[in-house]
Amino acid sequence: MGEEKKLTPRGEDFAAWYNEVVQRAELADYSPVRGSMVIRPWGYGIWENMQRALDSMFKETGHENAYFPLLIPMSFIEREKEHVEGFAPELAIVTQAGGKELEEPFAIRPTSETIIYAMYAKWVQSYRDLPILMNQWANVVRWEMRTRLFLRTAEFLWQEGHTAHATAEEAEEETLLILGIYRRFMDEWIAMPPITGLKTDSEKFAGAVRSYACEALMQDNRALQAGTSHFLGQNFARQFDLKFQSVEGREEYAWNTSWGVSTRLVGGMVMTHGDDAGVVVPPRLAPVQVVVVPILRGDDTQSRVLAKAHEVCARLKELGVRAKVDAREHLSPGNKFYEWERKGVPFRVEIGPKDLEKGQLAIARRVVPEGAKRKEFVAEAEAIASFSARLEDLQSELREAAAARREANTLRGVGSLGELQEALDSGAGFVLTGWSGDPAVEERVKELTRATARVVPGPEFRSETPPQRCVSGDGPSKMEVAWARAY
Amino acid sequence: MGEEKKLTPRGEDFAAWYNEVVQRAELADYSPVRGSMVIRPWGYGIWENMQRALDSMFKETGHENAYFPLLIPMSFIEREKEHVEGFAPELAIVTQAGGKELEEPFAIRPTSETIIYAMYAKWVQSYRDLPILMNQWANVVRWEMRTRLFLRTAEFLWQEGHTAHATAEEAEEETLLILGIYRRFMDEWIAMPPITGLKTDSEKFAGAVRSYACEALMQDNRALQAGTSHFLGQNFARQFDLKFQSVEGREEYAWNTSWGVSTRLVGGMVMTHGDDAGVVVPPRLAPVQVVVVPILRGDDTQSRVLAKAHEVCARLKELGVRAKVDAREHLSPGNKFYEWERKGVPFRVEIGPKDLEKGQLAIARRVVPEGAKRKEFVAEAEAIASFSARLEDLQSELREAAAARREANTLRGVGSLGELQEALDSGAGFVLTGWSGDPAVEERVKELTRATARVVPGPEFRSETPPQRCVSGDGPSKMEVAWARAY
Repeated sequence: MGEEKKLTPRGEDFAAWYNEVVQRAELADYSPVRGSMVIRPWGYGIWENMQRALDSMFKETGHENAYFPLLIPMSFIEREKEHVEGFAPELAIVTQAGGKELEEPFAIRPTSETIIYAMYAKWVQSYRDLPILMNQWANVVRWEMRTRLFLRTAEFLWQEGHTAHATAEEAEEETLLILGIYRRFMDEWIAMPPITGLKTDSEKFAGAVRSYACEALMQDNRALQAGTSHFLGQNFARQFDLKFQSVEGREEYAWNTSWGVSTRLVGGMVMTHGDDAGVVVPPRLAPVQVVVVPILRGDDTQSRVLAKAHEVCARLKELGVRAKVDAREHLSPGNKFYEWERKGVPFRVEIGPKDLEKGQLAIARRVVPEGAKRKEFVAEAEAIASFSARLEDLQSELREAAAARREANTLRGVGSLGELQEALDSGAGFVLTGWSGDPAVEERVKELTRATARVVPGPEFRSETPPQRCVSGDGPSKMEVAWARAY
Repeated sequence: MGEEKKLTPRGEDFAAWYNEVVQRAELADYSPVRGSMVIRPWGYGIWENMQRALDSMFKETGHENAYFPLLIPMSFIEREKEHVEGFAPELAIVTQAGGKELEEPFAIRPTSETIIYAMYAKWVQSYRDLPILMNQWANVVRWEMRTRLFLRTAEFLWQEGHTAHATAEEAEEETLLILGIYRRFMDEWIAMPPITGLKTDSEKFAGAVRSYACEALMQDNRALQAGTSHFLGQNFARQFDLKFQSVEGREEYAWNTSWGVSTRLVGGMVMTHGDDAGVVVPPRLAPVQVVVVPILRGDDTQSRVLAKAHEVCARLKELGVRAKVDAREHLSPGNKFYEWERKGVPFRVEIGPKDLEKGQLAIARRVVPEGAKRKEFVAEAEAIASFSARLEDLQSELREAAAARREANTLRGVGSLGELQEALDSGAGFVLTGWSGDPAVEERVKELTRATARVVPGPEFRSETPPQRCVSGDGPSKMEVAWARAY
């Protein structure tokens, strides 16, 4: 076995661990372009699996994909007042093209509300043209000063849904439908159960009436905003003249929603499940679910061992398992084990001359439950047949572990700013308190604790006994808030 | 039936027909961003089917997807001399970001050789790290002055493959492997059989040693460059220091290839199969293969007709057919027929009260072979079971028709510039002649005829009797060339 430089342990420096593990698992790498990253095949394969799952959830609910321009005339971005205030500081601007200075510069899209609603305005005449339910998979650029691989980069990949409706009710329903899809996707695919709810006004999307969000709790107990769904009201429709003739013959502005998740989710996955040996990829997202490593002795058993490895791999594929043989000759089995553990492949199958003799396979788990062994020897046919169940079991175990961790690190019923500060300082994740609705309290909390209001939790996440008083001590509570330090 | 404005017939003005049909079939639309288009769901759905097919062909041959930055430092683009000369006039340049002037401006990628090989240089140490076989699905920007929907736009979507190899032979093999994949894809999926071969030096990719291309013949007998595969030699490796230690321990530059197809293929599909009624989408690419239109009379049969339409649709889906019920209430059946014909859905099923009574379905074809009827009535179960075969048959018929048209419009054995000019003026498509290899002859042909050397055809497309003399009359022929006026 070769020398392996160990990762910085999570408990020692979580941020350092994250940066190392993302690069050493070959999920992503820094690029020569400031703040932009390269998504390497292992990371991109995970993103592709995320895309496939989300895309079919969108399509099942009647959404269609389309593609809108990357470049947005500056005058479009400037039209919605809050929108431009929110995004102007982060824009990358094209001022020259085709060898000339442009008369009107273009912004590289930081998000596409403006250009998309301008197009909808062209397509919509009557209520019969509504709803429009479109999504695009695209890259966007937001010039961030402090970047971190996957979590915050100058360019990132995402999907952005944009819909137009005849009524406010229908648009609000859509906003919540998507929030539910996001929550289900994070639960069932990333095994990263978020809490969901409404953003406070100070945290909402620039241009939205209301923003809903999914907030997941990472292993360092910081919250990650993992997806947002916005009810835009008629704000953009008014600016882009997106009107329709109603059933009653009146001219009305349409009601919009927009919603998105991004490659940030890959970072969320890493920080939810990773351990000191590397990344752990939930089976449903793993580009390779089972890696088959032949143990080659360089003797006359070699070709039979290799043939068996390929046979096992082929049979796993027939059963719908994403399997791969690692037959590289220049690496020892031990080096391969380390590499695939670091990458987070859920299971490893080892086949050596002895296993061949005994008609068995060695199955090694990436994640070893307490009291279990990493490796077990199972008769070949039984081993192969067991993987569908093993993968589903692991998926559930990861989900349960993440849910339990979130629950264990969520503190409810905190009644004062002092207690809130103490809770956060002693490492709590989400802390729920009452809130009067006064933005000054949010400011105060932020100053004191560096925590922000992540969401006003939806009904599923509210405390059984609603808090009576605002955490500030000033006045009664109007709503409950989940506070956390966030990415 | 409502009023339908007819499309300009192809025979009258092919370019006008193309522009109208792309917009009225809702494949794409002009955007407020000069030269950029919006790909609407029907067009994007076709592109998604193209992507899926190509992506699995790439993966079957060992390629992996990744993602590299949109923005490329200007100094990178300037490093390969021919490359910058080729692309500089078309660059869109970001000079400001995050509220500041940038010290070094970025180009929006017109193609990604430079940034990708800079990353490979970081990842490759030894021959063991080779080959690298990566692909990315991405948007690129080339500031074109005269744009046409799908065919030439300031921004377009494509895939770009980039590989690195230890030997020239292996890289050349890769270039040809991909050329073959492209040809097979265009043949079997778009039903648009191209001719393939080598580009002349004046037409090759900026920075390549050799470029191979697929050239398809449109209905107006102009050629469309539909895909290219480049052998880059060590040109980029030298500029980006992409070196490896060989088996023998020597330091060597890697050998690269790059290859791409784009949303231009959607335009090629339109110009290959469309007719005066609209687009014709080959079944394998059609987002909807069978549209089911209930004929609603507004009487007591209505709910039964509608239920039957949904039942038929569900049974088609079970058989793997992409089917959809068009139950819109504000459109007459006739209007729906026009719309789906314009969009090119391969088959329409009509169900009215009479059909219900007789246990039959009316099947209407988008493309009616000579002597056949557009519509036939078939017993329900038989009709449903027939669609897999109908779709495959239509796919072959479209392919055969396109191949026959290409053959009928390819003229071989043309021996002089006068004959070449005459052939092109009288509407020939590809004209094959001998060529001495002298670029001055290409210039002369272009001046005389507006045609360019599309390819030096590969062995499959060469004339049985090779031409003896150069078309210029000056000297012997070194190779055969396929000339055509091109998009």
